[in-house]
Amino acid sequence: MSRFGMIGVVGAGAWGTALANASARAGHEVVLWEMDEAQARALADQRTNERYLPGVALEDRVTATCEVEELGMADAVLMVVPSQAMRAAAGGVSRHIKMGAPVISCAKGIERGSLAFMTDVLRDALPDHPAAVLSGPSFAADVARGLPTAVTLAADDEWLAADLSAALASAGLRLYHSDDVRGVEIGGAAKNVLAIGAGVAAGRGLGASAGAALIARGFAELRRLGSALGARPETLMGLSGLGDLVLTATSEQSRNFSFGFAIGRGEPPSGKLAEGTFTAQALVALGERHGVELPIAIAVRDVLERAISVGEAVEALLARPLKAEA
Amino acid sequence: MSRFGMIGVVGAGAWGTALANASARAGHEVVLWEMDEAQARALADQRTNERYLPGVALEDRVTATCEVEELGMADAVLMVVPSQAMRAAAGGVSRHIKMGAPVISCAKGIERGSLAFMTDVLRDALPDHPAAVLSGPSFAADVARGLPTAVTLAADDEWLAADLSAALASAGLRLYHSDDVRGVEIGGAAKNVLAIGAGVAAGRGLGASAGAALIARGFAELRRLGSALGARPETLMGLSGLGDLVLTATSEQSRNFSFGFAIGRGEPPSGKLAEGTFTAQALVALGERHGVELPIAIAVRDVLERAISVGEAVEALLARPLKAEA
Repeated sequence: MSRFGMIGVVGAGAWGTALANASARAGHEVVLWEMDEAQARALADQRTNERYLPGVALEDRVTATCEVEELGMADAVLMVVPSQAMRAAAGGVSRHIKMGAPVISCAKGIERGSLAFMTDVLRDALPDHPAAVLSGPSFAADVARGLPTAVTLAADDEWLAADLSAALASAGLRLYHSDDVRGVEIGGAAKNVLAIGAGVAAGRGLGASAGAALIARGFAELRRLGSALGARPETLMGLSGLGDLVLTATSEQSRNFSFGFAIGRGEPPSGKLAEGTFTAQALVALGERHGVELPIAIAVRDVLERAISVGEAVEALLARPLKAEA
Repeated sequence: MSRFGMIGVVGAGAWGTALANASARAGHEVVLWEMDEAQARALADQRTNERYLPGVALEDRVTATCEVEELGMADAVLMVVPSQAMRAAAGGVSRHIKMGAPVISCAKGIERGSLAFMTDVLRDALPDHPAAVLSGPSFAADVARGLPTAVTLAADDEWLAADLSAALASAGLRLYHSDDVRGVEIGGAAKNVLAIGAGVAAGRGLGASAGAALIARGFAELRRLGSALGARPETLMGLSGLGDLVLTATSEQSRNFSFGFAIGRGEPPSGKLAEGTFTAQALVALGERHGVELPIAIAVRDVLERAISVGEAVEALLARPLKAEA
C-alpha cells in the first residue's frame, strides 16, 4: 500500500484538473483546491471544468473546494499554478498542508527577477517539505481523457521520486522517475520559448523542414544551457526535455506554438501569453550568466519585446555562418 | 571558385529533382540523369516533374537526360535513388563518372541482406570515388521551392565535407558539415522506422502526448544503437538525427508517417512503402548483432510483418514496466 493515500492539487486550471482526474484514476482520494471561490463552486456543482477543460467529467474521487484547510489531509500536494504565481501559492498553503508532505511542482518556467526554478521557489517557501517536479509531453486534454501519456517525476531523493511515480501511475499516465531535478526543470522552461520560435516560423510560412531544423538547433541550445547548469544529458534527451519540446513545438494544440504562430502571421504580440515572454527573458539572462550562446532564445525574446521584427529575426537565424555541426 | 563546377544527380524522383534545383540555385550547371527514358524526356520537354514534384519548375541550369554519358562532366555526383537500388545505380554509373569525383548518398536506409549503410555500398561499387552522405530534415517540396532548409553533409575527410557543403549551399539550403558519416546514416535510417511507429500511434487515435513520448523513447533507441556503432552523440542530436526524426514523425507530409497512420487506422500494411519495412527488419537485425534493445523498432517490424496486431503492439509498448528514465 502506498504511503500516499490522499493527493492534494493546488490550482484548478486545465492541467490541475487533468492531474486531479489522473490521481483519482490511480486510486486516490483527491482534494482539488481552487482559490477562486466561484470557480471552485462551479467545479463542485457541475462536476466538470467548463472554463478550462470543457467536456471532461471530474472523477468521483475528486473533491473540488475553495477551503484551503481541506488540503490538510493530503499526503502529497501537486502545485499546478503558473510559474510566476508559484511563490505566492506555496506561501498561501504553507500553514495548511501536512507536516513533511512532499510538494510537486507541475509548472514549467523560471521565476522572473530571481531566475529561480520552481523547486527552488518551493524550497524557499516550504522549507520543511521535500520538493519534486513533474514534467513531460502531456496535453491536459489527453491526460484528462485517459489517453496514454508518459512524464518524468524527479526529486533529489530518488526513492521519493520512485514512490511518488508509483503512487500516481495509472493505465493512462506513465511516470518515469529521476533524481535530476534541474535537468527536468530546464527542459520544461526552455521548450516553451523554443515552441514560440517554431510557431513564429510556421506562421511565417517557412515550411515544416525549417521548423524541424529550428527544433534541432533549439535542442542544441537546451543541451548547452543544461550542461552549464549541471543537468544530465539523458534527462534533456528524455520525456521532459526532447519529448516535451517535440510536443509543444509541433502541435497547434500548444498555446506557446499558437502564440508564436499568430506573431509569425504578422499579428502583434498580444501579451496574452505573458509566461512565455517572462521565460524567454529569464532563459536569455541565465544563458548570459553562464556564458552560453542561445541565439534562438534571444531572437524569440527580441521579437516578443518588439526589439526586432519577425523578418529580422528570421534573417538573423538563417544568415548565421555555415559551419561544422557539432 | 569552387572546384565543383558541374553537379550530377542520379535519379529524378521528388528528392533528386529538388536537389537538382537547389544545386542550380547554388550556381552550378546540373545534369539530372534519369534511367527511365520516358520520364527523362517528360522532364526535358515539360521542364517540370509532373509525376513526383508537380507544380515546381526546373531551374534553367538543370539538364534532364537519360544518357548516362552526360554524367561524365560532373565534378560531384548526388546519388538519389531508393536504398535498395543504390548498389545497382552505383554499378550502372561507375564507368561513366569522372575519375575521383565524390559521390554523395542522398538515400536513407540500410541494404537488405548485407545490412550495409549507403556509403558502404558506394565504397564497394565505386571504390575510386570518395563517398559522402547528405541527410537532414527536408521535404522535397520545401527544398524545391527554396523554402529555408538545413541538412548535414558528412564525409570521412572533413575538408571534402566542408568543400561540398559550401559548393551546394544556397539561400534556401544550408549545409552543416561533419566527418561522422556513420552517425548521419544511422539517423536517416532509424527515423523512417520510428516515423512509421508514430504514424501508427496517431492513426490509432492515441493523442499527441503519446506521439511525443514515442518520439522521445524512440530517440533513446537511436542513441543506443548509434553509440554501439560508433556514432557521435552530437550527430544523433543534430539535424540528420533528431531534426529529421521530428520532421518525419510529426508531419502528415511524411510518407512513412502516413503509411503508419493508415495501418493504425486498421488498414492492412499495403507493401506500398517497402523501404520502411526493409529498414525496420535491418534495424532490428543490427540491434541484435550489437546487443542493443530496440523495442519500438521491433514492434514496428512485427506490425509490418503482421506478426502482431496494432493493438498488441500498443499494448506491448505501453505495458513495459515503469522504471527510471535514464
